[in-house]
Amino acid sequence: MALYVHKYGGSSVADAGKIVNVARRLAAVHDAGHQVVTVVSAMGDTTDELIGLAHTVSREPDLRELDLLLSTGELVSITLLSMALRDLGYDAISLSGAQAGIRTDDTFGKALISEVDPERLLRELSLGRLVIVAGFQGLTPDEDITTLGRGGSDTTAVALAAALRADRCDIYTDVAGIYSADPRIVPAARKLAGVGYEEMLELAAAGAKMHPRSIELGAVYNVPIYVASSFSDAAGTLIHGASETDKMEDRIKVTGIACQTNVAKVTVQGVADRPGVAAALFEPLASAGISVDTIVQNTSADRTTTDISFTVANTDLARTLREIEQSGDAMGAASVVSDDTLASVSVVGSGMQNTPGYASRMFRILAEGGINIDMITTSEIRISCIISQNRAHDAVRLLHEGFALDVDG
Amino acid sequence: MALYVHKYGGSSVADAGKIVNVARRLAAVHDAGHQVVTVVSAMGDTTDELIGLAHTVSREPDLRELDLLLSTGELVSITLLSMALRDLGYDAISLSGAQAGIRTDDTFGKALISEVDPERLLRELSLGRLVIVAGFQGLTPDEDITTLGRGGSDTTAVALAAALRADRCDIYTDVAGIYSADPRIVPAARKLAGVGYEEMLELAAAGAKMHPRSIELGAVYNVPIYVASSFSDAAGTLIHGASETDKMEDRIKVTGIACQTNVAKVTVQGVADRPGVAAALFEPLASAGISVDTIVQNTSADRTTTDISFTVANTDLARTLREIEQSGDAMGAASVVSDDTLASVSVVGSGMQNTPGYASRMFRILAEGGINIDMITTSEIRISCIISQNRAHDAVRLLHEGFALDVDG
Repeated sequence: MALYVHKYGGSSVADAGKIVNVARRLAAVHDAGHQVVTVVSAMGDTTDELIGLAHTVSREPDLRELDLLLSTGELVSITLLSMALRDLGYDAISLSGAQAGIRTDDTFGKALISEVDPERLLRELSLGRLVIVAGFQGLTPDEDITTLGRGGSDTTAVALAAALRADRCDIYTDVAGIYSADPRIVPAARKLAGVGYEEMLELAAAGAKMHPRSIELGAVYNVPIYVASSFSDAAGTLIHGASETDKMEDRIKVTGIACQTNVAKVTVQGVADRPGVAAALFEPLASAGISVDTIVQNTSADRTTTDISFTVANTDLARTLREIEQSGDAMGAASVVSDDTLASVSVVGSGMQNTPGYASRMFRILAEGGINIDMITTSEIRISCIISQNRAHDAVRLLHEGFALDVDG
Repeated sequence: MALYVHKYGGSSVADAGKIVNVARRLAAVHDAGHQVVTVVSAMGDTTDELIGLAHTVSREPDLRELDLLLSTGELVSITLLSMALRDLGYDAISLSGAQAGIRTDDTFGKALISEVDPERLLRELSLGRLVIVAGFQGLTPDEDITTLGRGGSDTTAVALAAALRADRCDIYTDVAGIYSADPRIVPAARKLAGVGYEEMLELAAAGAKMHPRSIELGAVYNVPIYVASSFSDAAGTLIHGASETDKMEDRIKVTGIACQTNVAKVTVQGVADRPGVAAALFEPLASAGISVDTIVQNTSADRTTTDISFTVANTDLARTLREIEQSGDAMGAASVVSDDTLASVSVVGSGMQNTPGYASRMFRILAEGGINIDMITTSEIRISCIISQNRAHDAVRLLHEGFALDVDG
């Protein structure tokens, strides 16, 4: 007998028929003699509809109130799934995040899980019940309801799996797994049988979209996470820790190609080259909640001024430029230029940085495709190039083929 | 500074515009220097819609699951009302039944309030906040969510008013108060300025429909309940205890005319006249949850058998006959006859039974109208006649006029 945590997203429970479909899948797991705790998101577009409703009475809905409002979406889907299971003759019970013991801080709208008290979950499981838990929500020490932010149900599922020491956390979604590249861009993209936590973080945009916090949590507690389709029985992708493969030399390989097409680059030119300049530039951005990705600094020939370039999501560009304008004088910056027509393409694989040849191979493939590289950054498991947005998909296809990732490659 | 509990029903918060209207009313109470705790029902027909949704996945939804599902309706309305108040610049906070300290037993679907812990309510009030509480719901000792049954938000409001020792509990609804008869039947019906708790229970069908448990709770804790329209500022009806008027002789008077048109009468003929017969007849009905109203027993001339007649809601008639059939042999009953085309009309007033003349006056008015009386029962504050359903409205009009209750009477 194994203990599984399942998670079904909003598209998997979008209507009564789909809810009954999920109920049948869970019944089969139960019939096979396993225990299962199931985390469910709100039905279809419920969360967006509730946010729209809030805006009919308030220009800027209070975050605490909004969280209590949004939490109702998952209460609807868990109770319906539990009823559907009972209608099939199975003993099921639904639990809100609070009832399931999910405790969070009070950062409404994007709360962090502080603790999972599995007492009630274990009690219901010991009664032989199928337990259905509301994703995306928790309870503060003051007994206020919080939500965990977009995609938070993934985090709920992995946190429960960790607290229950479950054998596996299965994330069922409308995509069949994790691919070597986005299948919409690269039709020959390969579904990966397995992928490490860190590579998964880099590949999040390729195929199933997982909440990054859930992957990080899985890595910390070493929870095997299996991503597959809720609409078919095709094999999915297992996201696992390094321990399973870390002695194998062939672990060092390219796993997939990631791509982000919403990249804007900002260059602050002629900044005085003295200590504290970078802090003066980036601290206000951090305070404003703007996430900065790649940062490159080039000191000029005369060594008295420097240029600092960095990338942000292009939706954050306007706010970024406002913040810099306010802090520009302090830095003595000569001018600021920006470009919001960029993309990032990355080659992702375990241990790449320690293996020569991957970077140069990437640059050659792009060069042969006539694609100019604007910026380059590398990490342990990733080489990224900032290129023109309108060549991004070409770059993904060329790299996918060039690194022999195509299904027939 | 007074402390008020307000309650707004589903029709008063049916859409964003009406929610903002309620917010403005509460803001005015706050501006006048008062504290106010507001209980809200689910928007419009939300509860019925959620019940319908449950039936899309289950033929017979589990009551615990259904309660958790239904509880979301009020969470939506309280958060929207709180957001609307905040949008107007007022500090408001919404609380679920659980957060508001409403503890119940675990009779899902019609739970009874066991206790109200006002700690959180008092804390929020002390911060100067407008507090919005979800009606109709509570929490069991096992931390499961319950609902209080139809109209339960009235009970929530009165229970909170009792626990907070509020100065008054205001029930705002789509009807302007309590009338001397149903205004749809008697256009000249008079809106009552005041009415006692017990009379209110008898008059519940005349004008604003209050949940009977809320009136009983108000009577026990002596909470003044004010019923008025949420759509106008016209004066409503104050439901109060006897203490305010019990020394006044003119208290003994007719308050109004009540009417129920869904009455079925069952007569079990030729029942053996021995102890235990009535128990054998009515215990199975009680177990089946069938509410029996009037009961009349006539012993036959030879004193060996008896006829027992009683009334039930006509929607319960089929079940009632089935139950009697099963217990009939035990009673040696000769035959069962029933009639589901009856109505009950009542003259309601304080202390009527101690005052001669009211009953005979009622019978004369009905007789002059050519209306035959089938059964008669009386209580401290009520004389009721069972008559033919198709003369019910005539009877109400004749009695309303005959007892000089018409506005111009």
